[in-house]
Amino acid sequence: MGERISVYEVGLRDGLQNEVAFVPTDEKLALAGMLADAGLRRIELTSFVSPRWIPQLADHAQVAARAPRRPGVVYSALVPNKLGLEGAKAAGLEEIAVFMSATEAHSKKNINKSVAEALAVLGEVTQAALAMGLRVRGYLSTVFGCPYEGPVDPARPHELVHQLLAMGVYEVSLGDTIGVGVPKQVREVVRRLETDVPLSKLALHMHDTRGTALANVLAGLDCGITTFDSAFGGLGGCPYAPGASGNLATEDLIYMLEGMGYDSGVSLDRLILASEHVSHLVGRTLPSKVLQSELGRRQQAEERAQRSGH
Amino acid sequence: MGERISVYEVGLRDGLQNEVAFVPTDEKLALAGMLADAGLRRIELTSFVSPRWIPQLADHAQVAARAPRRPGVVYSALVPNKLGLEGAKAAGLEEIAVFMSATEAHSKKNINKSVAEALAVLGEVTQAALAMGLRVRGYLSTVFGCPYEGPVDPARPHELVHQLLAMGVYEVSLGDTIGVGVPKQVREVVRRLETDVPLSKLALHMHDTRGTALANVLAGLDCGITTFDSAFGGLGGCPYAPGASGNLATEDLIYMLEGMGYDSGVSLDRLILASEHVSHLVGRTLPSKVLQSELGRRQQAEERAQRSGH
Repeated sequence: MGERISVYEVGLRDGLQNEVAFVPTDEKLALAGMLADAGLRRIELTSFVSPRWIPQLADHAQVAARAPRRPGVVYSALVPNKLGLEGAKAAGLEEIAVFMSATEAHSKKNINKSVAEALAVLGEVTQAALAMGLRVRGYLSTVFGCPYEGPVDPARPHELVHQLLAMGVYEVSLGDTIGVGVPKQVREVVRRLETDVPLSKLALHMHDTRGTALANVLAGLDCGITTFDSAFGGLGGCPYAPGASGNLATEDLIYMLEGMGYDSGVSLDRLILASEHVSHLVGRTLPSKVLQSELGRRQQAEERAQRSGH
Repeated sequence: MGERISVYEVGLRDGLQNEVAFVPTDEKLALAGMLADAGLRRIELTSFVSPRWIPQLADHAQVAARAPRRPGVVYSALVPNKLGLEGAKAAGLEEIAVFMSATEAHSKKNINKSVAEALAVLGEVTQAALAMGLRVRGYLSTVFGCPYEGPVDPARPHELVHQLLAMGVYEVSLGDTIGVGVPKQVREVVRRLETDVPLSKLALHMHDTRGTALANVLAGLDCGITTFDSAFGGLGGCPYAPGASGNLATEDLIYMLEGMGYDSGVSLDRLILASEHVSHLVGRTLPSKVLQSELGRRQQAEERAQRSGH
């Protein structure tokens, strides 16, 4: 068995929140079950934000409460504030995720708070969650580039990772929110962090907007990172490119990991079932290349079978 | 200035031969000029094969003869046999490319010759080309996996690279023809080769069928490879997946290289002009993510301008 890699599945949250179509609650629940059946053990189900912000996830309470519990599967949800935390707790979740930007301009535009103000809110929510017995994951956005400020000095995420861990989050996921990062940056950021942060407390959340996500994952793997975020099918658009890719596709991640001898515990065949299903629900071809390749292969096989009279 | 990386542009050949649409000759010539204007210095224009095999490139003699010559730009064409070589020479090309498979089953299916038979033909064509004063590049296909034989023992390409170099090809491009390769394999193949082959005589030709092409390029870069093949826009379908990606997109390659401080000499903005143009000609959205991201960004900017009354 190869080294174990932990895949944190964000498609139902970071994916669906960027899709135009609203996926019915019962279908979301079915998808959560399919992802668990595929071997994913960490699944972010939804986001406890106002339906006015993200109508696609307006059913967050239902989804979090009713997602099929399975031994070994940890469900989580994004939580922006104490109200969201109460909702997540009431729904029976054992883990939440909190988020903030690494850059001032993105923080202001995204949540109308400075980085310091965001940190204060995260501290309160995290403290309250820990007091309730929940585990808390932290997302740090715009680590590899900001749509307003451009390049980001690695000193910034370094400092913020320390503050997030000091609050009590068990892991910080470093996000390439707009998908501008390249492997050199991943190495710079990770090598700086590993001087005083255990790599086991870091994850990479790469977006594939410019095609670099898997190369960035490779750079992370080479540096010793063992946790990666991804979205099944590559669900979720990119803010700058309608129809283009946003999240790294879980299939593509798993294909590379397994091919390199890592152990992800995920069945690619079963994962593809979930992606095919959600593709019908959101009404578009999803960007995962492994998925597209498999669908193309099947189509060819069917055509061959028809031609030969079967 | 960073380390110089040589990009070998295959879109007009490996791209267009896999597109359904026939691109008119004058447009191909215009595209060659646009690629040269973008800073590409090695451009494979076409393939001197029978129009019955590849009707999309039936105008190979015209394209090769009339492509706009520019100082420093080397045009090449794929040549399967001596007849093709005569055509390429008559068209005024100074370089040709020859190709063969690393696996017996693919060789048989693709050109109805065993690997040994293919080597013999390549030897004759290469000798004749060198005698005419042409430079010869070699392609070795199915290095990282064969659609009929599956995984490929790295000893096979190692042996064949030696035989190709002994014939007099100046460089061997190692092809992941069906896009199954992962970075671990790239490292294995390159590390084995570098024991007795100068890395400057090797190139990587990765297909992005399963999303791993740029990660494979990164593995190659880390091993010291400095030449990479790619197709502008990501032109060219995948044999198993209609609509899915085949060739690595030159834009995505350039974006990563430049972001990591390498010097490709290519202008991304000018390259995108060529890809936009060919996208209209082949009548489909091309898979390059950098291209899609740029088009999406522009569309958003236009929508914003319209809303604000400009």
